[in-house]
Amino acid sequence: MNFAHVAIIGLGLQGGSIGLAVQEFLPGTRVSGYDLDPAHRARAAERGLAHVVHDSAEDAVREADLVIFCVPPGVMGDAARAVRPALRPDALISDVGSCKGSIARALGEALPDHFVIPAHPVAGTEHSGPDAGFAHLFRNRWCIITPPEQTDLLKLSALVEFWEALGANVEHMNAEHHDLVLAVTSHLPHLIAYTIVGTASDLENVTQSEVIKYSAGGFRDFTRIAASDPTMWRDVFLNNKDAVLEMLGRFTEDLTALQRSIRMGDGEALFGHFARTRAIRRSIIEEGQDDSRPDFGRGDHEGIVPAA
Amino acid sequence: MNFAHVAIIGLGLQGGSIGLAVQEFLPGTRVSGYDLDPAHRARAAERGLAHVVHDSAEDAVREADLVIFCVPPGVMGDAARAVRPALRPDALISDVGSCKGSIARALGEALPDHFVIPAHPVAGTEHSGPDAGFAHLFRNRWCIITPPEQTDLLKLSALVEFWEALGANVEHMNAEHHDLVLAVTSHLPHLIAYTIVGTASDLENVTQSEVIKYSAGGFRDFTRIAASDPTMWRDVFLNNKDAVLEMLGRFTEDLTALQRSIRMGDGEALFGHFARTRAIRRSIIEEGQDDSRPDFGRGDHEGIVPAA
Ligand SMILES: NC(=O)c1ccc[n+]([C@@H]2O[C@H](COP(=O)([O-])OP(=O)(O)OC[C@H]3O[C@@H](n4cnc5c(N)ncnc54)[C@H](OP(=O)(O)O)[C@@H]3O)[C@@H](O)[C@H]2O)c1
Ligand SMILES: NC(=O)c1ccc[n+]([C@@H]2O[C@H](COP(=O)([O-])OP(=O)(O)OC[C@H]3O[C@@H](n4cnc5c(N)ncnc54)[C@H](OP(=O)(O)O)[C@@H]3O)[C@@H](O)[C@H]2O)c1
Repeated sequence: MNFAHVAIIGLGLQGGSIGLAVQEFLPGTRVSGYDLDPAHRARAAERGLAHVVHDSAEDAVREADLVIFCVPPGVMGDAARAVRPALRPDALISDVGSCKGSIARALGEALPDHFVIPAHPVAGTEHSGPDAGFAHLFRNRWCIITPPEQTDLLKLSALVEFWEALGANVEHMNAEHHDLVLAVTSHLPHLIAYTIVGTASDLENVTQSEVIKYSAGGFRDFTRIAASDPTMWRDVFLNNKDAVLEMLGRFTEDLTALQRSIRMGDGEALFGHFARTRAIRRSIIEEGQDDSRPDFGRGDHEGIVPAA
Repeated sequence: MNFAHVAIIGLGLQGGSIGLAVQEFLPGTRVSGYDLDPAHRARAAERGLAHVVHDSAEDAVREADLVIFCVPPGVMGDAARAVRPALRPDALISDVGSCKGSIARALGEALPDHFVIPAHPVAGTEHSGPDAGFAHLFRNRWCIITPPEQTDLLKLSALVEFWEALGANVEHMNAEHHDLVLAVTSHLPHLIAYTIVGTASDLENVTQSEVIKYSAGGFRDFTRIAASDPTMWRDVFLNNKDAVLEMLGRFTEDLTALQRSIRMGDGEALFGHFARTRAIRRSIIEEGQDDSRPDFGRGDHEGIVPAA
């Protein structure tokens, strides 16, 4: 089974990239799109992010056998309710949200008569809006699909094929586990990056221009991810609260231990901890999720990375 | 005044890069080098990191009018004491250590009869040892010089010219202020990166291979700097303890506030904080300390960045 018509709700980084990728890699498939923001719709039409950009969400989904919600995590339920009357009864519902448990619940409640199979492409940049998308965003990146226990296996395998056609490597897990894994690989790093950038800009004895000037010392690696979309990240933290707070608790414990080592002058403990982390970096390079080239392989999919 | 003969003690990333850069950009200047590790000396000679690599530190400095210590922060005093008997009385003493207050004191105590003008090129990579250096490491990067209040102004201006010849932009400040600035732009980011990489690898409900697999979500930006040399970083934290603990205290306060916002579901506070950090990222791009190209301008100096 192949999808004949994909509808994309939300034409920002993710939605726009899917629209472009479908046109490039699945030329037999129709793509229609909708965005709540009229200016985004106009720009999306100009860039050709979909074959047709509709002025109503209902029109966009009317003929689709796959509907993908690409809106911030906090409005998934609203966006789904808005299209319910126009959906084909056999349409598969999916999304690209960065957290899965709460979104699966919101979509399921909004569309109780449809199959919902949530997904999360672990691919992104710190840019957003209708100008941010590009067709190769998903190439060589993971897409995690979190099917509910009872689902339509034909539709599930069609969704897997869909993402593979867009260049992604597909993995399955349950929504709860997804949220734990991403809490540590993505949500906690973003929270910390946001925090340190804020801390650095509030100092009275070091000016902001000094912070910026000497950012090559390590700080700028954090600013990149702290430039990500505030709406999306607010929603991620509110929607994956428990897992984020759990990971944050562990991080804080570990930081307190290192703080104590510094205060006590315990060089051995510091050295032991720092030596251990090198091995992890090496594994990441070997796994191909990063590399040691100057651009860290970002050119491979022709876009700037950090994903969410 | 120009230096006729530069001696480099410690032929790793920094020392090797200086040696190569002097040969490329200051062809009239002699470079001699020494490293405590015989294997490093052999490799340094093979790569031509200096005109001559000596088997004794005293021989390396004997004719030099500029001696630069490029060893870990914790052994600066030892390395200086080892060459004292062989130093020319008019030789200027400098270094490249990542913290300045304690190193200035250690060098001053070890060599009470010499002018000491510490320096810190804010340029580096996560690699170390005699294979890590490259001539263009310092190009378009800042080099912070921290002269004591009483110093030889001719020697100071010669040191400024030396670093400018290697491609760096030179800035002055006092050692104490340097240590505060770098605590926030470099030391704290490294400490946090080391912590989160450790936290992520100790989880029992998320496997290390999952962490690695989905690291594109943000985590991998942290692993790069957490792969830096453990000896050097142990020494940095022990030698810049007060400033690091001060910055860490502020960071922890801010993190606790965000944690509370998440726990209380205060979306407005989260959004406000996240929106503010975007502006800082833009300033860094405008300042040219990073850019929005896929390789973040790292190709500009032909090496991988994060510096220390
Ligand atoms: N960015 C990443 O790195 C990344 C990675 C993986 C997954 N994701 C997930 O992908 C989803 C979209 O993120 P994105 O980065 O593509 O964000 P984005 O670029 O801001 O795009 C979202 C678009 O949806 C529009 N929108 C908001 N509410 C809507 C509604 N009710 N109906 C229709 N359109 C609506 C937005 O318009 P306004 O801007 O006017 O609100 C915007 O144009 C999020 O759930 C996020 O968690 C993001
Ligand atoms: N890496 C960065 O990003 C960066 C940036 C700016 C400044 N710095 C500063 O630069 C200095 C050197 O760092 P690096 O990155 O160049 O380190 P590195 O690559 O490890 O080089 C240091 C070299 O010095 C040798 N050494 C150790 N003790 C010695 C002694 N007593 N006498 C002579 N040689 C000795 C080391 O040998 P062994 O390995 O066998 O000990 C090693 O070959 C440090 O003070 C650091 O704070 C580093």
